[in-house]
Amino acid sequence: MLISTTSATRVLAARLPEHAGEPVTVEGWLHRRRTLKSVTFLVLRDRTGLVQAVLTTPEQLAAVEGVGEETVLRVSGVATANEQAPGGLELTEPSVTVLSSRAAPTPFDLYRPTVPATLPTILDHAPVALRHPRLRAPHVIAAASVAGYRAALDGLGFTEIHTPKIVGSATETGANVFGIDYFGTRAYLAQSPQFFKQMMVGVFERVYETGPVFRAEPSDTARHLAQYTSLDAELGFIRDHHDVMGVLSAAVAGMIGAVRERAGAECELLEARLPAIPSRIPEIHFADAQKLLAAHTAEDPRGEPDLAPAHERWLCEWAMREHGSEFLFVTGYPLRKRPFYTHPEPDRPEYSNSFDLLFRGLEIVTGGQRLHRYEDYVAALAARGEGVEAYEGYLQAFQHGMPPHGGFALGLERWVARLIGVENVRLATLFPRDITRLSP
Amino acid sequence: MLISTTSATRVLAARLPEHAGEPVTVEGWLHRRRTLKSVTFLVLRDRTGLVQAVLTTPEQLAAVEGVGEETVLRVSGVATANEQAPGGLELTEPSVTVLSSRAAPTPFDLYRPTVPATLPTILDHAPVALRHPRLRAPHVIAAASVAGYRAALDGLGFTEIHTPKIVGSATETGANVFGIDYFGTRAYLAQSPQFFKQMMVGVFERVYETGPVFRAEPSDTARHLAQYTSLDAELGFIRDHHDVMGVLSAAVAGMIGAVRERAGAECELLEARLPAIPSRIPEIHFADAQKLLAAHTAEDPRGEPDLAPAHERWLCEWAMREHGSEFLFVTGYPLRKRPFYTHPEPDRPEYSNSFDLLFRGLEIVTGGQRLHRYEDYVAALAARGEGVEAYEGYLQAFQHGMPPHGGFALGLERWVARLIGVENVRLATLFPRDITRLSP
Repeated sequence: MLISTTSATRVLAARLPEHAGEPVTVEGWLHRRRTLKSVTFLVLRDRTGLVQAVLTTPEQLAAVEGVGEETVLRVSGVATANEQAPGGLELTEPSVTVLSSRAAPTPFDLYRPTVPATLPTILDHAPVALRHPRLRAPHVIAAASVAGYRAALDGLGFTEIHTPKIVGSATETGANVFGIDYFGTRAYLAQSPQFFKQMMVGVFERVYETGPVFRAEPSDTARHLAQYTSLDAELGFIRDHHDVMGVLSAAVAGMIGAVRERAGAECELLEARLPAIPSRIPEIHFADAQKLLAAHTAEDPRGEPDLAPAHERWLCEWAMREHGSEFLFVTGYPLRKRPFYTHPEPDRPEYSNSFDLLFRGLEIVTGGQRLHRYEDYVAALAARGEGVEAYEGYLQAFQHGMPPHGGFALGLERWVARLIGVENVRLATLFPRDITRLSP
Repeated sequence: MLISTTSATRVLAARLPEHAGEPVTVEGWLHRRRTLKSVTFLVLRDRTGLVQAVLTTPEQLAAVEGVGEETVLRVSGVATANEQAPGGLELTEPSVTVLSSRAAPTPFDLYRPTVPATLPTILDHAPVALRHPRLRAPHVIAAASVAGYRAALDGLGFTEIHTPKIVGSATETGANVFGIDYFGTRAYLAQSPQFFKQMMVGVFERVYETGPVFRAEPSDTARHLAQYTSLDAELGFIRDHHDVMGVLSAAVAGMIGAVRERAGAECELLEARLPAIPSRIPEIHFADAQKLLAAHTAEDPRGEPDLAPAHERWLCEWAMREHGSEFLFVTGYPLRKRPFYTHPEPDRPEYSNSFDLLFRGLEIVTGGQRLHRYEDYVAALAARGEGVEAYEGYLQAFQHGMPPHGGFALGLERWVARLIGVENVRLATLFPRDITRLSP
């Protein structure tokens, strides 16, 4: 097939070493301009890196007079070895063409090694701030993570699905949903694809979705967003939640592998250390975790139905000490704190066949085995004082035979934030949405 | 890594031939039960196909008394060659365990070769109707298409992005948006990632997104949905729209290749004929298309700013006759009918550097070159009587230097519908949303 996807002669910055000594043309943004007494350096930025051009003659200097950073340029010159230049090569004898000029200077310098701006300034100017290599890198890591996730699950026989983000009732958790005016009736933005992915186990056995979910989160925290990207999976014909944890482990291993392969330079730039994934991620039951916390910390959390953030951090330190693992599965959370569709632990029904995956002090995945018998759903809803009416579509699947199944959901932005070691999940989101922010 | 993803002994239907003569265990749904005088056949369905078990002894028959279709079963037996059985093998000496019973019979028979139900019945019962192999197959084809799309663009240096589906103003086309109550202020569901993907050309040069878009489409037609999956791409440093068409051609070729590789059985089941993609997809300018239509059909469409559906069908027949191609690019649509960000044709500014891709009589992709200079945006908005205020975030990107760029959007459901030859796009959507349908 004849495919011409760019001007025939353009050489990307990362490919320059293949053209040492040759005349080449590069295109990109003017990342930095340094004017010395007798020489001007132009550093160009394209999607693969930086390349420097050296201007010395009056004609060369006249051509770039008044040309400021972020102007889009085409530079033709000779790729000449210079150990001090980025990449070991620079363009000499350059001829510069302005492809597109800028209308205003940037709100802060994009060429500085660290970002010289506060988070609100960064977010207000996201369309241009994201050009800073350190602000751009998390999203290359995110893209690699999602690609690795999909590839791992494709290899395990999963089918990708696309489910509705507009739903008729706010049933899944009841709170924190956005209302929509849907052709004159009330509808809601889906908080997760939970019900749909479960129903689709009846069709494809193994499904995943990588898409947006919506939470009308009323508090402004470093780890919550009104929209985030959820990596969801669900699989049938399991024995219990341990089969789900096995698939999740494979998915996380695939994500780490893809990040290493496709975003190595970005990890290096951010000094992001990739975790080793143990041959088997250590696991501790919720009840045993509480005993450990009671024995070794100042608090006694027994009786509490969930783990506090400080407990999650302590358990991660424990897992590193005892098992050398940055990952830890906590299993068997009390049933009353999990959603109604959660499968109880067969011998101790006050606990559940559920798990969280903790990574570097924080929960990044929630999952578990679900109920699969229609009568169990009717009973579970009745126990919470609810009828089946609002769940009609969902329960159809269970009326017609559903295998034992379970699944999980991984928050992409949280994963990336942990991986690169930033506290605020907004730095792992292109255009965050929260209670105070609806633009850009 | 130790990964156990299913019960150790389960054999999938498609793998049965590897176990001829051996004892095996299969798990799945009871697809069909046929009771004859002295023998009962159980046909089991799993995610890979069908397998038949033959029950003959009184004990075997007693174990499945009253067990209806869609019950989830485990069947252990001997994989025995039988030319008349599906796949050439059947399970003899079977021992049957009910993994999960059904609470009700299905609304229509799932085992019949064609679907014995109307579209409304199918959609009302989607959670179970989609188990019918003919209703399930389009979604396997969709998953393969998206995988092929991503792989093709990954190979061309694109970065996947995730953009907001909640936006602050209904600016892109003005009409047909869903309103949201966003923490007490008015917001809208995004009609497309258009503005975001353009801004991200400034960061990644080449981006794509595969996600939901929302249209408050007030009419109930066979080809419109309130939510559909848009395969979007945008790339910088182009000469004009032909570079975009080259990337789109590569993406479509990747989609066809992936469908052939990953969904061959589903195509066969639906008798879906995959198109050949020519070495170069034929192209006709809008003005020339109108001349052709005036010369060869009863109508004279000259002066009309767009093509009518009948014209698109005629042009596709023409492309097949003249060029042997099921694909046709129509380029150069009149500028006044395209969005404000469309780049005019340099020598004939009443036309534009835009295109549609027609496939089997229908437009499935719209794309083109966009404006890239800040002052051109200000002028284009002024010409339509609009100020820049509502576009503040978007225009930031253009204030700070943007290369010539363009992109396209392909509707996944329309693509699949054309591929499998169904008229109604709802048959290529798991859970369609439209003016009359918000559930299941």
